[in-house]
Amino acid sequence: MSQWVYSFSNAKKVPSKNRKNLLGGKGANLVEMVSLALPVPPGFTITTEVCSYFYDHEKSYPKELKKQVEEAAKEIEKSIGMKFGDVKNPLLVSVRSGARVSMPGMMDTVLNLGLNDKTVEGLAARSKDERFAWDSYRRFIQMYGNVVLNLDHHDFEEILEQHKRDVDVTEDTAITADGWKKVVAGYKAMVKRELGHEFPQDVMEQLWGAIGAVFGSWQSARAVTYRKIHDIPEGWGTAVTVQSMVFGNMGEDCATGVAFTRDPSTGENYFYGEYLVNAQGEDVVAGIRTPQSLTIKGKEKEGSHLSAMEEVMPKVFKQLCDVRSILEKHYKDMQDIEFTVQQGKLYMLQTRSGKRTAAAALKIAVDMVSEKLIDEKEGLLRIEPQALDQLLHPTLDPMAHKQIIGRGLPASPGAASGEIVFSSDRAEELAKAGRKVILCRIETSPEDIHGMHAAAGILTTRGGMTSHAAVVARGMGRACVAGAGGISIDYKRKVMIVQGAEIPEGDIITIDGGTGDIMLGAVPTVQPKLSGDFATIMGWADKARRMKVRANAETAKDAQTARGFGAEGIGLCRTEHMFFDPDRIQHVREMIFADGEGGRKAALEKLLPAQRRDFVELFTIMKGLPVTIRMLDPPLHEFMPQGDNEMEHFAKVAKLDLETVRRRFAELHESNPMLGHRGCRLGITYPEIYAMQARTIFEAALECDVTPEIMIPLIMTSTELNILKALVDITAEDVFVKAGKKVSYTVGTMIELPRAALMAADIAQNAAFFSFGTNDLTQTTLGLSRDDAARFLPTYVGKGIFEKDPFSTIDKDGVGQLISLAVKNGRAANKSLKVGICGEHGGDPASIAFFESAGLDYISCSPYRVPIARLAAAQASIRDKI
Amino acid sequence: MSQWVYSFSNAKKVPSKNRKNLLGGKGANLVEMVSLALPVPPGFTITTEVCSYFYDHEKSYPKELKKQVEEAAKEIEKSIGMKFGDVKNPLLVSVRSGARVSMPGMMDTVLNLGLNDKTVEGLAARSKDERFAWDSYRRFIQMYGNVVLNLDHHDFEEILEQHKRDVDVTEDTAITADGWKKVVAGYKAMVKRELGHEFPQDVMEQLWGAIGAVFGSWQSARAVTYRKIHDIPEGWGTAVTVQSMVFGNMGEDCATGVAFTRDPSTGENYFYGEYLVNAQGEDVVAGIRTPQSLTIKGKEKEGSHLSAMEEVMPKVFKQLCDVRSILEKHYKDMQDIEFTVQQGKLYMLQTRSGKRTAAAALKIAVDMVSEKLIDEKEGLLRIEPQALDQLLHPTLDPMAHKQIIGRGLPASPGAASGEIVFSSDRAEELAKAGRKVILCRIETSPEDIHGMHAAAGILTTRGGMTSHAAVVARGMGRACVAGAGGISIDYKRKVMIVQGAEIPEGDIITIDGGTGDIMLGAVPTVQPKLSGDFATIMGWADKARRMKVRANAETAKDAQTARGFGAEGIGLCRTEHMFFDPDRIQHVREMIFADGEGGRKAALEKLLPAQRRDFVELFTIMKGLPVTIRMLDPPLHEFMPQGDNEMEHFAKVAKLDLETVRRRFAELHESNPMLGHRGCRLGITYPEIYAMQARTIFEAALECDVTPEIMIPLIMTSTELNILKALVDITAEDVFVKAGKKVSYTVGTMIELPRAALMAADIAQNAAFFSFGTNDLTQTTLGLSRDDAARFLPTYVGKGIFEKDPFSTIDKDGVGQLISLAVKNGRAANKSLKVGICGEHGGDPASIAFFESAGLDYISCSPYRVPIARLAAAQASIRDKI
Repeated sequence: MSQWVYSFSNAKKVPSKNRKNLLGGKGANLVEMVSLALPVPPGFTITTEVCSYFYDHEKSYPKELKKQVEEAAKEIEKSIGMKFGDVKNPLLVSVRSGARVSMPGMMDTVLNLGLNDKTVEGLAARSKDERFAWDSYRRFIQMYGNVVLNLDHHDFEEILEQHKRDVDVTEDTAITADGWKKVVAGYKAMVKRELGHEFPQDVMEQLWGAIGAVFGSWQSARAVTYRKIHDIPEGWGTAVTVQSMVFGNMGEDCATGVAFTRDPSTGENYFYGEYLVNAQGEDVVAGIRTPQSLTIKGKEKEGSHLSAMEEVMPKVFKQLCDVRSILEKHYKDMQDIEFTVQQGKLYMLQTRSGKRTAAAALKIAVDMVSEKLIDEKEGLLRIEPQALDQLLHPTLDPMAHKQIIGRGLPASPGAASGEIVFSSDRAEELAKAGRKVILCRIETSPEDIHGMHAAAGILTTRGGMTSHAAVVARGMGRACVAGAGGISIDYKRKVMIVQGAEIPEGDIITIDGGTGDIMLGAVPTVQPKLSGDFATIMGWADKARRMKVRANAETAKDAQTARGFGAEGIGLCRTEHMFFDPDRIQHVREMIFADGEGGRKAALEKLLPAQRRDFVELFTIMKGLPVTIRMLDPPLHEFMPQGDNEMEHFAKVAKLDLETVRRRFAELHESNPMLGHRGCRLGITYPEIYAMQARTIFEAALECDVTPEIMIPLIMTSTELNILKALVDITAEDVFVKAGKKVSYTVGTMIELPRAALMAADIAQNAAFFSFGTNDLTQTTLGLSRDDAARFLPTYVGKGIFEKDPFSTIDKDGVGQLISLAVKNGRAANKSLKVGICGEHGGDPASIAFFESAGLDYISCSPYRVPIARLAAAQASIRDKI
Repeated sequence: MSQWVYSFSNAKKVPSKNRKNLLGGKGANLVEMVSLALPVPPGFTITTEVCSYFYDHEKSYPKELKKQVEEAAKEIEKSIGMKFGDVKNPLLVSVRSGARVSMPGMMDTVLNLGLNDKTVEGLAARSKDERFAWDSYRRFIQMYGNVVLNLDHHDFEEILEQHKRDVDVTEDTAITADGWKKVVAGYKAMVKRELGHEFPQDVMEQLWGAIGAVFGSWQSARAVTYRKIHDIPEGWGTAVTVQSMVFGNMGEDCATGVAFTRDPSTGENYFYGEYLVNAQGEDVVAGIRTPQSLTIKGKEKEGSHLSAMEEVMPKVFKQLCDVRSILEKHYKDMQDIEFTVQQGKLYMLQTRSGKRTAAAALKIAVDMVSEKLIDEKEGLLRIEPQALDQLLHPTLDPMAHKQIIGRGLPASPGAASGEIVFSSDRAEELAKAGRKVILCRIETSPEDIHGMHAAAGILTTRGGMTSHAAVVARGMGRACVAGAGGISIDYKRKVMIVQGAEIPEGDIITIDGGTGDIMLGAVPTVQPKLSGDFATIMGWADKARRMKVRANAETAKDAQTARGFGAEGIGLCRTEHMFFDPDRIQHVREMIFADGEGGRKAALEKLLPAQRRDFVELFTIMKGLPVTIRMLDPPLHEFMPQGDNEMEHFAKVAKLDLETVRRRFAELHESNPMLGHRGCRLGITYPEIYAMQARTIFEAALECDVTPEIMIPLIMTSTELNILKALVDITAEDVFVKAGKKVSYTVGTMIELPRAALMAADIAQNAAFFSFGTNDLTQTTLGLSRDDAARFLPTYVGKGIFEKDPFSTIDKDGVGQLISLAVKNGRAANKSLKVGICGEHGGDPASIAFFESAGLDYISCSPYRVPIARLAAAQASIRDKI
């Protein structure tokens, strides 16, 4: 018989490696805490396998489940001495989701389950607090009503607000036990009205309802969106954890809180967290009440006047500090914890690896290595390479004039400018149109995920450092200023009111998530100054990685950036980019219009000095390093004049009549330019173009200290390479003889067509290197035009046909198969073959992991992604050896 | 030391398998004849390896060659008792080319080599015929001057014509010995004037000059063209055969002739040939003198008044008949022979497998099998599948009115209509513009190859059945009427004069190469009636082949043709072709313009009855056979209205405003439609389209007796197939439930993207069949757009990058590798997987041979190619077992 349910105590039998997959992150971590003898309320977990079963069997459960749940519930009753549905001593439970990885706020939770018209009286009697009992019951009805019965949150809120108005109070805390009874009666009446039946009184019915809702929430729209953004497979499923309730809201000796064992923004090693006295956990996370700091240090840092837990509950705080230390030693990582204090007793509800900013990730890794908690390799693995992106991009120019209009909490670092928008839908709409937006909300909720993802920055007027907006923004690497209390937002009129003035939607503001500043207009930015931690981490990465990292660059600026970020050469210099300069494009066009080889040569001669200067500049910057130069690749029509004005101008300067220009342009049209007359096909049909390019490269190289690597694009047969390599060699010989000196150089190929990969053994015989052009290789292997795929790719990702966009992360199964084959056969034919990749996948960590396993010698990516690639390559190298 | 030269006698040591490759077809066959004890003048062959060496080493020879040639020449001298350059008893030789396969008239030949001012006297003395000696000398100077010294043929002709005018004769035969001496003096003076030096008198210098010219002619423009047309690799090279001369022009007891051991036009088993008394071989082939028939039967058949060899030289004729019989028994094939009779003695100069029409090939194969010369399999291998094309195309309607304006020899069967053109360049030019032409020439020469290839038919006013025009036209399968003496052609005025009337260039005529008739205007044609031989051969082929043969068809007409030609099912029914009907395209367009699924479904409903009718019709024709139907494949913009008129019309009928139509059209534009939103991507994004198609197929199938095989195009992942197969299955279930009955059907995929081939194991798990779409698979594997490649593909074939156009003959190395991989992995994953091919390569014999070796179950091709495919599949099957 399959075991579908594990109690926390018996779950220790599940090997720790499988625990997360089977029990979800939350369930697994509760079990860990139980084994560390930390105070965890008893409970059990229904495995993720039940979730898979649920969706594979038309939302039904395995037949053994009912019995197993009932037995596990009995075990809780036994261990805690309370009974589910017992009118005297009722057991209350929470029902929570828990996937293999954390998806904060994405799925449903039900608390206080087990209350009904009878048990509420039992709870009142046991707790000697009637008000607490009825408050709990109304919370339960509200949550269950919303999550399980799909009733509108607002319908409940309205009843509550009406009651407050009736009794003339403003705070929930001012409502009496009788008041809560009235609210409960109102709630129940509304439920009956809306659904046609009573709110369920049978506690087991309540439990199964909640379990079904949690499994159902795995496929909620917001969860699906979150998984897409975070690349979480559909198939993983969620577990459901049922745990006996503890109460942070049973009085002033109760509290609830969330904490990070270190500062998740900066990484500083101090106990960072928030708590609320007499509250339930969601009060902290939702950002409705302003939470108080755990520590005096934290209170001072934030300039808060509210007492720290350290002051208010010193004994429990001490206990919590011990827990912090035990957990960090056990997990060897910064933890994000939830706790509740019930009548002076501490309970741990959750621990998990804490989300952090890139800067914090670096600092925590570096600190933990010096604290000898982890070693350098483990430190490297702790950092999400993509997150470095945050550090590498410009920050606000400290010297710039700033019109600061408000300030909030520095919830997620980074600076961002953009148009104000007030809804997530609008944010997404404008972002799709290529506009940068700042999403401004009173507070955010999981429904805002798509808008937060689309926005350059997020501003909220309510909520703390652990509010939804703050946590999600940090996870996404978006700049965020939270809880900017001085600002109010009017959604209806689409304005933000700041110091009496109104700022309408569409106006531009700048936010600095590192300081909390909000500024009018777009503030200029400067290059980031990278921290010492960054250098330390990069140093470890460079020691750990096997693959070299190069950059794709052709301009001096890009080459300088790349070298600054540690690029070890240029892996792709696209020579055609040098042709678009206004001074040169005329000559390029003249070449295209030339009659025969002679005319083309004459036009090329005019281009030669400029292109040689470019190469000298590039080679000077890259001194001592290899530079891979790709010969002209795009089809000639890309250089043609566009529109009537350009055509007329060109015709005039070139002394051609306009009709000829138009006709020639029409002649160059191709049905499928991607598969057309481009790449080495140009070199084969117009050898003079490649000869000119080779000449300028060699003449420039003679002045500098580099090893030019000449790369022939779009090879499909070895014969093409043989013909063009001979052309390059003859040109080199000619230049060297005239100059009376030589430089060393090599000739290799792009592998960017399936046929080239299939024929690698042949091609390698005459190639010094292969560089995989994964953009085109993806297009041809999948028969998928990158320019046209947008029309159906979202449907493809949505229906699970592709897990990820194959232009972002390499299609390992298909394209990867060709790469592995080409590497194997190419090396077998030519032992000294150097193999790299210069497609855009070169900067994608998941792809880099594949390139490591495929045994590539180097990866080349855009300059700003070089540090990411260095780290990802190191991680891949470390993981490959495990 | 390498052996570069073989005497005929010692060449028997070379294994017969390698002989042709090493010695060329001509050299190898001479050696065969020597071993059959047939009378062959002594000689030697310089191997094809020397030709390769020659081109690999800047046109120089291996160092051992000189000595080996000199020794072999000595051997001839010894065996024949004459000496090269000896003034008393001079040895004369011919120097001929000879490639591995025959390239008639393509390369150079020099005869009578060894004559100079001194040896000509020796020849005169020995032959006691001064006139013959000087005639031979002038022929030698003329030929050597033209071939080796590159002098213009006309310059020689002019001197000869001038002499004739001077002495007032019209025939060469009327020129005396002194006359020839004067002509020789004139030739020599002209040579000196043109070249600045004397005509070479050193016989060894003459010999090396001729050898160099023959090797050089391998790369002549016409030879290169011929090789391209006939797919002969550059690398094979030519051998050079040097053979002692015998003379057919030493008097009335001399003759020369060419013959076929059976009639090359019809295949009839009688001795078919022509001879000329007192002539050299080229006189027969060039078609300048009208040759006489070998046999009385032949003479009667052609209605000739000239005596047959059988009458004139009965003894030698008898000897020749014995040779015919020995050769046919030895080669077991119809032979094309050249012979010379010198003073009553027969010499065999050449034998080779004879070119023949398709009808002749069939008859000869069938006859030889019944004569037990060969078995059925060998009979099948004797027929060039491509040649069947001639038999399958329409012939003149016997009932049609014909205005016959002339008659010539029925030189190559088939009927053709077209515009008259008088030059090969013009023929090529018009053919490129898509126009059909009849090339009309006084006679043709190797310079006309490109024009003959471009023409639909060839008409000459001079020359016999073995003239250049006749032989080449038969080889190419072009209709040809030769030697139409009643017609004269004026090249300058571009008119043809027939019975006093002038027909200008551009007028349309029809020629019938089976009767020799020439008709004014375009005569209507009828479907060919296939001979009993055809049925016999097809019967053998069907027994011998392993692969099934299907047709690509969607119209009733094509399906009927296909079934008539023996197709065993439909391998590709392109449903989109059914959408272009004027009645339907409006609905298709409405579907494209529809807002959302509902609108699309409504438009599709209107298409449904028409498409169902199409399927009923098709299924009825293909009763009892499988029909593979491909779901909608092309991108939607292919259905859009084109041009302003169509757009306006559509907008009016669909009640849309014109701007909307234009905008939607613009939206559908794709940069690379080949890689765009098409194939199953349409089915994924608009499932209602595929659902409608599936519904019509099943509804139609319920009325008929077929097994529909539903084919999903452009699959790249197994998930796509899984989703769409589920859609088809659900639709089938729905139709079957409503109808209360079922039909059996299968669902499979096109494999036309590299990724699909790479992922075959995955995809095969849910596919009943794979059908390779080799057109698209070639485009994507090679990154080569078929629509755009014309711009550079000729350069690619010219430079030897591709041996053949990869869209005509499958790229075995690249695309073939993917096919083999997919077949292997697909079958491993699904033992019952059926594998076929439906790209255009399905009708190409070379590709079919590959598909046999790759183990495909069936091939599918256009209806007219079905018999070709049946034969090619049989040949592949036979060869695969050898």
